[in-house]
Amino acid sequence: MAKKILGIDLGGTSVKMAIISLEGEILEKWTIATNILEEGKHIVPGIIQSIQEHLERYQLSKEDFLGIGMGSPGKVDAEQGTVIGAYNLNWRTLQPIKEAFESAFGIPFYIDNDANVAALGEQWKGAGNGARDVVMFTLGTGVGGGVVTNGQLVRGFGGAAGEVGHITVDTETGFDCTCGKKGCLETVASATGVVNLARQFAEEYAGDSPIKKAVDDGAVSAKDIFDAAKEGDYFANEVVTKFAKYLGLACSHIANTLNPSAIVLGGGVSAAGEFLLEKVSEYYYAYTFPQIRDNTHIMLATLGNDAGVIGAAQLVRLQVGE
Amino acid sequence: MAKKILGIDLGGTSVKMAIISLEGEILEKWTIATNILEEGKHIVPGIIQSIQEHLERYQLSKEDFLGIGMGSPGKVDAEQGTVIGAYNLNWRTLQPIKEAFESAFGIPFYIDNDANVAALGEQWKGAGNGARDVVMFTLGTGVGGGVVTNGQLVRGFGGAAGEVGHITVDTETGFDCTCGKKGCLETVASATGVVNLARQFAEEYAGDSPIKKAVDDGAVSAKDIFDAAKEGDYFANEVVTKFAKYLGLACSHIANTLNPSAIVLGGGVSAAGEFLLEKVSEYYYAYTFPQIRDNTHIMLATLGNDAGVIGAAQLVRLQVGE
Repeated sequence: MAKKILGIDLGGTSVKMAIISLEGEILEKWTIATNILEEGKHIVPGIIQSIQEHLERYQLSKEDFLGIGMGSPGKVDAEQGTVIGAYNLNWRTLQPIKEAFESAFGIPFYIDNDANVAALGEQWKGAGNGARDVVMFTLGTGVGGGVVTNGQLVRGFGGAAGEVGHITVDTETGFDCTCGKKGCLETVASATGVVNLARQFAEEYAGDSPIKKAVDDGAVSAKDIFDAAKEGDYFANEVVTKFAKYLGLACSHIANTLNPSAIVLGGGVSAAGEFLLEKVSEYYYAYTFPQIRDNTHIMLATLGNDAGVIGAAQLVRLQVGE
Repeated sequence: MAKKILGIDLGGTSVKMAIISLEGEILEKWTIATNILEEGKHIVPGIIQSIQEHLERYQLSKEDFLGIGMGSPGKVDAEQGTVIGAYNLNWRTLQPIKEAFESAFGIPFYIDNDANVAALGEQWKGAGNGARDVVMFTLGTGVGGGVVTNGQLVRGFGGAAGEVGHITVDTETGFDCTCGKKGCLETVASATGVVNLARQFAEEYAGDSPIKKAVDDGAVSAKDIFDAAKEGDYFANEVVTKFAKYLGLACSHIANTLNPSAIVLGGGVSAAGEFLLEKVSEYYYAYTFPQIRDNTHIMLATLGNDAGVIGAAQLVRLQVGE
């Protein structure tokens, strides 16, 4: 029987797990709630128990698996297989994840941060379609990212490659970022970033707009702004244009440096879909070297919530060299 | 006897060649003039003949070599081993370089563009000191670059990775670039780019300065401007500050995306040395994610004119997998 891979996508509210073929097909998948009580000490035992139950149910044993892959929030040490500072899991201290899984299952275990793992998923089976050079932006509460070159994840010297949310896109009047810098992409292209732009524009915009009123009332989301823009609201469209300019600029930096096959946009903000893609691409092409513009395109992520488990499986494949 | 590598650095005025050990030591090196007459048709035969003469002189044969590596101007197809559009060599049509060398010597031949090859040289034996993740900017007449991640050269999907000179650093009032875009790094950080900045500032600067006078007379070089800045000339210092801001910003984009061990500055403009490094680093650190700032540093290239031949040897090593 062909080997399989176990993929785990660990998040602050739920843990997604899947049994995946070497070709990237999801054979079984299930989800459990993340129990973050008592400094998150039940998380790993809970995942292990759930996997053991499912292996039993499907009459599978460790011999059926090439390995286990996991994407996690926080600061992940891929080499040691540890996580620290994952605050949405209540993991403040160093968690020896790899050790726990390898002693429970006796098969190879690999872990990386969730943004890198999602990028691997989209590179392998999503918008990247298996290409060797793919970069992903995850536009959510913050902006994360992952970089794949020559078919391998780029971790960088300090393990912090892919911090594309902290590319400086405004050197003059940029918003303060939680990282301590100013003008980071995250301050204008995350869900809260879009609202930052709307608030700023509301201060200078004298015209009338239902969405401007909602901004003034402090009751607006990125989705509201994109929805209003799609319906032709001038105020909202101006905000989306600013967003698109900054994100298009950041994408052009990636393209001019790496010339990947695809720059993939995922995460909640990217749900604005083709409308968003078109606006961002307009600025992106204007800022990108002509020879690269012809073959590096921005694409929407296609895997949705499956990117994490599929990417976790790809992490195993790349490490094991399958 | 341990195998050696032949490294060739093909330029518009001279061809540098070297016999290099697998450890990157230059054992012999020599230079011939580049004969670009008759559409550059004498270039490859001239190099082959010169190598044959030197192998005879040193009593070496093809069995002594792992392969031949070459860096070339123009658009290089690394897979096919061809070059096209190298105008400073008069090579307008497709040149089957690999074919010519392999039929002459019967050993593997690898070629890449000169900026990529210089980056490999600095990565292996220069400022990169063998690190797996190194990016180089070559600040010359234009601005070129090369990207090494996970110990491998990044060519990208269309072979145009490393076009860091076309990173857009000014979206508002940028200078026109030869590539057709506006505000490219090359328009402010190359030798002519520094002069562009000086001319622009001369128009708004009312004060007195010998270097401003030279700018107005149209007789100033990037070197003059850096020299004057070092001597405390206010006008020149303002120009260098603008240059440093743009280059520091572009370096920060690389760092935030790839977190390499080193971002190496080479080429003629980088001869301004520590003075330049300090100014660029100041802006670079301000624009770089704190966790990355701690371990990705900007460094000056150390190999000078040897980067090309050493990088050509590294190209062979990486391809052969030594």
